[in-house]
Amino acid sequence: MRSSWKRWLLEKVYEGAGKPRVRLMFDDGPEIVPAEGPPAGTIRIRGWSTLAALALNADIAFGEAYTDRRIEVEGNLVDVLTAVSDAALARGRKRKRWSAAASAWLTLTQRNTRAGSQRNIHHHYDIGNDFYQLWLDERLLYTCAYFPHPAATLEQAQVAKMDHVCRKLRLKPGERVIEAGCGWGALAIHMARHYGVKVKAFNISREQIAFARWRAHQEQVSHLVEFIQDDYRNIQGGADVFVSVGMLEHVGKSHHAEFGRILSRTLGDAGRGLLHFIGRNYPAPLNAWIRKRIFPGGYPPALRDVMQIFEPADLAVLDIENLRQHYALTLEHWLERFERAVPKVAAMFDERFVRIWRLYLAGSAAAFHAGSLQLFQVVFAGRKCEAVPWTRAYLYEPTGETEWMRATS
Amino acid sequence: MRSSWKRWLLEKVYEGAGKPRVRLMFDDGPEIVPAEGPPAGTIRIRGWSTLAALALNADIAFGEAYTDRRIEVEGNLVDVLTAVSDAALARGRKRKRWSAAASAWLTLTQRNTRAGSQRNIHHHYDIGNDFYQLWLDERLLYTCAYFPHPAATLEQAQVAKMDHVCRKLRLKPGERVIEAGCGWGALAIHMARHYGVKVKAFNISREQIAFARWRAHQEQVSHLVEFIQDDYRNIQGGADVFVSVGMLEHVGKSHHAEFGRILSRTLGDAGRGLLHFIGRNYPAPLNAWIRKRIFPGGYPPALRDVMQIFEPADLAVLDIENLRQHYALTLEHWLERFERAVPKVAAMFDERFVRIWRLYLAGSAAAFHAGSLQLFQVVFAGRKCEAVPWTRAYLYEPTGETEWMRATS
Repeated sequence: MRSSWKRWLLEKVYEGAGKPRVRLMFDDGPEIVPAEGPPAGTIRIRGWSTLAALALNADIAFGEAYTDRRIEVEGNLVDVLTAVSDAALARGRKRKRWSAAASAWLTLTQRNTRAGSQRNIHHHYDIGNDFYQLWLDERLLYTCAYFPHPAATLEQAQVAKMDHVCRKLRLKPGERVIEAGCGWGALAIHMARHYGVKVKAFNISREQIAFARWRAHQEQVSHLVEFIQDDYRNIQGGADVFVSVGMLEHVGKSHHAEFGRILSRTLGDAGRGLLHFIGRNYPAPLNAWIRKRIFPGGYPPALRDVMQIFEPADLAVLDIENLRQHYALTLEHWLERFERAVPKVAAMFDERFVRIWRLYLAGSAAAFHAGSLQLFQVVFAGRKCEAVPWTRAYLYEPTGETEWMRATS
Repeated sequence: MRSSWKRWLLEKVYEGAGKPRVRLMFDDGPEIVPAEGPPAGTIRIRGWSTLAALALNADIAFGEAYTDRRIEVEGNLVDVLTAVSDAALARGRKRKRWSAAASAWLTLTQRNTRAGSQRNIHHHYDIGNDFYQLWLDERLLYTCAYFPHPAATLEQAQVAKMDHVCRKLRLKPGERVIEAGCGWGALAIHMARHYGVKVKAFNISREQIAFARWRAHQEQVSHLVEFIQDDYRNIQGGADVFVSVGMLEHVGKSHHAEFGRILSRTLGDAGRGLLHFIGRNYPAPLNAWIRKRIFPGGYPPALRDVMQIFEPADLAVLDIENLRQHYALTLEHWLERFERAVPKVAAMFDERFVRIWRLYLAGSAAAFHAGSLQLFQVVFAGRKCEAVPWTRAYLYEPTGETEWMRATS
């Protein structure tokens, strides 16, 4: 009798997940094998409470159980999670009541007010530069790279990304650039060194800002780049160009209009800019476990959400590029480096931390592979902007490729 | 005393228009000269009733008065109208009560139901192929061209546009393509001839369909292209690719979700497509006079509006390109050819018709110059689509330019 109960509950979990192409096993007991095709791998669930939690709210329960080894994955983790993401997309957008409630609770407690943003950003970005140095590229770019071809190294692809952004912006020497959310400063320094612009770069992570200032000093561009430890809402003064790479996901939908007012105030009607962000095909909250453990307050906007930024200021969208496949590859690179660094990570933190981060990196790669996340670069301009290119051909002229080719691997 | 009343009303009209950089004259009486810079030209208003109508609802009154010669424009018409559009954009989005009421009335009476679309399309596109042959390019493309460089001829630019669209779609021989709103068939024929695909092309304009069938016969691609005189809502069957150039403006915002269901039904989750349409930076109705006299039921959507098409079907936006400047130049070419053909047009129709069309073409060029209209090309794909390119570099490889260079001028 007990065995048939186990199977019934396991089947509920499997159906709730949209019947992914994976083998699902519960303890030593029943297992489910996908009806079609070879499974991408095996998910092994231990304990009644784990199974019950998965049935109630798989979004959070899966990550929590994986962290505690109550779930183990056999086979390639990215492949298994891609099959899970695929099934979730095919199943559609119905959400369970518990899952919706947990999501609403996170939205309420992780609001991106000034104080909230400070807490949310500190949680992720201030855990130690030495940790990020273990698995990011040498310049510490923690956003989607641009691989001119898939075999490019991560170092080359991150330099190519910065050049792709700079060329899209058509930077000219002497122009004033404001960067919102500058990470460890690589783009700000690159813009100053290679394009001769004056940059004011904002960030509220104190660890990142400290590192960025040191790097600007080393690279002898301190006279061109000012790193300001402050909230984007405090950006003052005008600029020719506004750029933000990987910050909009932390702004939150309810602050888009406010973000738009800051853009507009900075650029007037003659400026231009670029936003680079993780997005979605339609509005939906970020996975609840990722918000709980990795990115409190995170929201990857749909393009419709983003229009709230541009519309009130009459900013024209000039160019949108979707780099989804590039982020999947970037994450595969990070995951590979992370795995090599696991002994050091475990020594810095603990085994739970290692499993949380492995699941986050592999799960993100899976989300980009499956298409539940997208990566958008949006170029925009005011109606008096004179830097609007005639065509996009200049972005692909051979001269532009020399820079990333010179990047060391 | 009368003179000061005239001046007061003239000033009201001038202020209502946002103080454009033009000289405004009323009969032989008062005139207004812009406070800054040389005027782009002179707008001469005749008669009290004209001035009063402009004060009440300039959107419609300007076009009606221009048609009847109660308004004359001195100087370059496109420049004058660009100054007027510029001022309207700078003034912002407040609309007068009469103007809003007239707009609502047009929306109500020009709905794009099946019967409504039939009426609306017939009004514009069935006025005679011989008229359009007077001033369009030799292949009769009546949508924004793509000028690889601004000095390209209109003929070259229209071929380049078709190739740009085909390359964005990555057409492969033997693939099934559905085209919604095919005009005189140039793109469908081009896709079949040069890319070897099988096309089903829909259009409800009987004059255009008749011409398109004849051209397909002439070009010996009748076995590859089927021209179907039917509403896009009746599109049946699957396809690898869905393309629509210059039709979405006639679909109307309230039918976007329905249009999306047809896209989704046609493509499943492995297809891809391209929409090319006149759009806006933010949702706003089309100019009321243009709807009254030129495009009944027309609505140039904002990108936010367009997301209603893609979101429910989980279609990913891969690429958006804004070709606003190309449409301004296309319209300048059309206007120049139209002016050369004026004696023939006047003989075919009458002087009023000439003035209506001159104002429509010049006003559209002005709207694209000023930025109150945009031209978007949106490439999209289902999440199982395998034709997603790694980068967009292939669009700009030299081989792609041979085709338009061969086009005769």
